[in-house]
Amino acid sequence: MHEAVDRGRLRADIERTGEFGAVDAEEGRGRTVRTGSAANRAAREYLVERLEDAGLSVRIDAVGNVVGRWTPPGADPDAAPVASGSHLDSVPGGGIFDGPLGVYAALEAVRAMRDAGAAPERPVEVVSFTEEEGATFADGVLGSSVAAGARSVEAALALEDDDGRTLEAALDAVGFRGEGRVDAGAWDAWLELHVEQHTELESAGVPVGAVTDITGITHCEATVEGEANHAGATPMADRTDALAAASEFALAVEARAVAEGPPAVGTVGSLSVEPNAANVVPGRVETGVDVRSTEYAAMNRICGAARDELDRLERQRGVTTAFERGFDLEPTPMADRCLGAVERAGERTGIETLRLHSGAFHDTAHVADVTDAGMLFAPSRAGVSHSPKEWTDWADCAAATRVLVAALADLAGADAGEERT
Amino acid sequence: MHEAVDRGRLRADIERTGEFGAVDAEEGRGRTVRTGSAANRAAREYLVERLEDAGLSVRIDAVGNVVGRWTPPGADPDAAPVASGSHLDSVPGGGIFDGPLGVYAALEAVRAMRDAGAAPERPVEVVSFTEEEGATFADGVLGSSVAAGARSVEAALALEDDDGRTLEAALDAVGFRGEGRVDAGAWDAWLELHVEQHTELESAGVPVGAVTDITGITHCEATVEGEANHAGATPMADRTDALAAASEFALAVEARAVAEGPPAVGTVGSLSVEPNAANVVPGRVETGVDVRSTEYAAMNRICGAARDELDRLERQRGVTTAFERGFDLEPTPMADRCLGAVERAGERTGIETLRLHSGAFHDTAHVADVTDAGMLFAPSRAGVSHSPKEWTDWADCAAATRVLVAALADLAGADAGEERT
Repeated sequence: MHEAVDRGRLRADIERTGEFGAVDAEEGRGRTVRTGSAANRAAREYLVERLEDAGLSVRIDAVGNVVGRWTPPGADPDAAPVASGSHLDSVPGGGIFDGPLGVYAALEAVRAMRDAGAAPERPVEVVSFTEEEGATFADGVLGSSVAAGARSVEAALALEDDDGRTLEAALDAVGFRGEGRVDAGAWDAWLELHVEQHTELESAGVPVGAVTDITGITHCEATVEGEANHAGATPMADRTDALAAASEFALAVEARAVAEGPPAVGTVGSLSVEPNAANVVPGRVETGVDVRSTEYAAMNRICGAARDELDRLERQRGVTTAFERGFDLEPTPMADRCLGAVERAGERTGIETLRLHSGAFHDTAHVADVTDAGMLFAPSRAGVSHSPKEWTDWADCAAATRVLVAALADLAGADAGEERT
Repeated sequence: MHEAVDRGRLRADIERTGEFGAVDAEEGRGRTVRTGSAANRAAREYLVERLEDAGLSVRIDAVGNVVGRWTPPGADPDAAPVASGSHLDSVPGGGIFDGPLGVYAALEAVRAMRDAGAAPERPVEVVSFTEEEGATFADGVLGSSVAAGARSVEAALALEDDDGRTLEAALDAVGFRGEGRVDAGAWDAWLELHVEQHTELESAGVPVGAVTDITGITHCEATVEGEANHAGATPMADRTDALAAASEFALAVEARAVAEGPPAVGTVGSLSVEPNAANVVPGRVETGVDVRSTEYAAMNRICGAARDELDRLERQRGVTTAFERGFDLEPTPMADRCLGAVERAGERTGIETLRLHSGAFHDTAHVADVTDAGMLFAPSRAGVSHSPKEWTDWADCAAATRVLVAALADLAGADAGEERT
């Protein structure tokens, strides 16, 4: 049934979604889709329309997760469904594939199974999780954290953005605060197709990745407090320059992550200065640090080195510092059953797959806590993502979707015998 | 006549001015007074009221410079006036003395001369220059650049803030776009009283500084362009991290200024990151650099080192960079005549003075290009300025004002013989 995947239909859905929140870019196609924005509303409404056009019954839960259910003819409507999807939000100035590819590939999979007359034994659900990127209300994977029971609906709805607006108010504003809670634990299995965001597939010339495990991730906030002072009248020796200290901190995080070796990474991605005028010695700096590895001990070593550097800066530069490790998720292995389904699907469809780990965190890590979960990757040109230059060739999108169809059919109990011939 | 200085009257004017644009501060008293803001309007309107209360005739020029003229009884109204003043604007979160002390000390000087029955031969003008701090429309000393003929009225009015609003529109909005141009070249002499913004006076236990020269100043903008990318999926070795590169740049500027030795200083005071999210490798950083010295060659060496570091970062980190030295003023010596008047005034009033240089740039540097100019400093507690912690004791404010009165009377040709007894 993978032959029924319609590349043009998939492409049209992704390109249309890329128009919501589009940003000017010298090269490529960028979008900014924050939870609760007009662009987010448009992307959500378009998805609901496309799910309904395909004959799926749509449900919105209390935190805005969107689920479209297809109950195949002859399937047991009470059987635990097989689910697949991803997210529609983006980082500021992100690309058009990160998220939407997984959502619309799942929908295309349902359409392809239906068009091919496939008869899975289980219902199939197409899912879009709220705020995977964490650009607005949380550190990321917000909707899946609720679906996996890691966070309560109430706690999620009370999260606030930088302007003090709650997620509840933001979802109300876009008409996507539904009822109840999508329960990932009720799914028989889950698959997410996502762009790789790295170069392993491109380098290997393989169109589909079979993910073995998902990196752990920590977000830390480090604050450096010095003394704001006149940049002309304050001699170098009398300064407590928060930005100079924060610069040493950023370089120390980078150096430690480099020393740790792949797949560990450490990033000071955000940095804000007060008062931030050229003629004032910086008085305060806040930084956001992202640390990841498939080895939890490596993550702990990088965070420890970051703390040690702040201690050194207190002693040697006279600043005061604070460090908070606010968000912490350990590495997650994928279920053998799902990884196997993906690899078998590759064999059945004649599309080569490559085992790799995910250096990015995904909603699938939450889902994996409560049911069998797996991931597929499509190649990212030059490994670029979270940028308008993010790109996956349409042929690769279609190839990965074909493998997804075959894997979902396998997991949902469709007769895949014909595929073997 | 310096005995007629009314410390309470001076303090009341400075404290009232400090209420406009007041900001919350854990310690001290802060204010944010940007050109064209409601706070700026209130500060200007209060000054006009106080000038008129003291019997001065007020004039506003086309770029919002405010001048109050006192023509003493018996003085030649056509004689070139002696002028004194400073500015009312502030950096974001600045203190209440930087600027207002000089404006209201000049007004208090006129009131004291008048109250003492002094009869200078020349008119005396009290001046408030537009946007000395450069937080909104220019890099600083905007009003004095026009008064000294270094910039045309038209060029000044066309300057834009970050929102694209022109100075002309901002002055219209607050009702302070007058006519013509205050001409500093028409003044016989100029004195500015300002807070020291450093610790020399405090350390020496001397209440008044006699400024020998004003530092030169350069503002540069350095831009570092890397590649925005996913912070989890991009291995350390594959990154072009604009913030890591900019961190090395900031430390190189600091190291070179330290190596240059006092009085040279170099500051990366502002830094902004794009896209500025913890989970995105920074793609672009813009920094504002401030370089000063009383020796122009030292400034050039620091700027040269900054450029060299950017070249190194291009080679070694693969970033692309840009460097613009947009604002550049050479060091300025004070006129012997004015420095002498200040030192004689110290002797006459029995108030000790100390020679020192100004590490901060001031409107007086522009005025010095077109007439005889001098500066007095009052002590800054702990050397702090551009911060709510900025503080000058009221007794020191009064002492410096007494010296200012005597020096202005000297320059304006009042009979100061009585002061010597």
